[in-house]
Amino acid sequence: MMLEIGARLIHQKGYNYTGIQEILKEAKVPKGSFYFYFKSKEDFGLQVIDQYANHIGNTLQNYLSDNTLSPLTRLKLFLNEFLASFIENDYQGGCPLGNLALELADTHEIFRQKLTDIFESAIKAIHALLDQAQKQGDLPSEKDTKDLAQFLFFSWEGLIMQMKISKTSQPLDQFNRVVFEQLLV
Amino acid sequence: MMLEIGARLIHQKGYNYTGIQEILKEAKVPKGSFYFYFKSKEDFGLQVIDQYANHIGNTLQNYLSDNTLSPLTRLKLFLNEFLASFIENDYQGGCPLGNLALELADTHEIFRQKLTDIFESAIKAIHALLDQAQKQGDLPSEKDTKDLAQFLFFSWEGLIMQMKISKTSQPLDQFNRVVFEQLLV
Repeated sequence: MMLEIGARLIHQKGYNYTGIQEILKEAKVPKGSFYFYFKSKEDFGLQVIDQYANHIGNTLQNYLSDNTLSPLTRLKLFLNEFLASFIENDYQGGCPLGNLALELADTHEIFRQKLTDIFESAIKAIHALLDQAQKQGDLPSEKDTKDLAQFLFFSWEGLIMQMKISKTSQPLDQFNRVVFEQLLV
Repeated sequence: MMLEIGARLIHQKGYNYTGIQEILKEAKVPKGSFYFYFKSKEDFGLQVIDQYANHIGNTLQNYLSDNTLSPLTRLKLFLNEFLASFIENDYQGGCPLGNLALELADTHEIFRQKLTDIFESAIKAIHALLDQAQKQGDLPSEKDTKDLAQFLFFSWEGLIMQMKISKTSQPLDQFNRVVFEQLLV
């Protein structure tokens, strides 16, 4: 319960600006309970990240392992459907992990390390999918799939930034046109 | 002086987490001086953004208007050289406007509007350059330059995020390979 409330507050306001007091107040628990479950605010933040990472990892695996669809279709579905709740929610929040990365990469080395590892696993999953697409002849053999996987992942983070600012889904249409009609062909 | 100090603090810590007291203390000025120059913290933040936007706008114009180079070379130089001080500075900070966009887009409508306008001018400048490249035959005529300009700008923001997290320039090499050897050809 504290983790859910904390995750929501951190997503809305950032890590630094979310106070333990505020989490306790919303969760209606005394301070002692917080320190029973978490060593510190940092420990709490890392557990919030783990929770997100598991959710994203599971979603990614569900999409990417569906062998009834072509690899590129699976990739497109993942990149698009993962944004559905963001769109429904009026483009509030954006990518919780991307936000934390920008907020904390310079000041909290332990968060930077953890986020780097999570992003690298996501990129690895996309890389494997592009390799499959290449094997099946859906992607020219001369394309460097590692370069493309990294580029795609962070362009997608840029896309989320753009949707969060513009409060429209137009950038998603444009992303799909560039990525799936020009880049991955 | 207050603007420079405030800009640096906001870049390091974010808008919400930077206090007026802290700016006053570093600038060694009394509170009255702050409210002589700025109506509020919001007004101050907007002026910090204006300062950044002017700097970025001028740099962009300098690069993009150099007619001795081909349009795509100018674009590459801009996208790369703009990152030189970020790289020299050990990948600290990142894009001040992208950071503020993610931090404030949901909660401060006036900031969201201002940042949207600034990003749109940057995209317009890139769009004009891609149109030039197309006219000169450096880019196939069927490419949608508006789509590409938007996509490029936010992929570049994603690139900065990636460099800030990884603390290496490897993502820049990979960005250059994908954008200038696969996408803009």
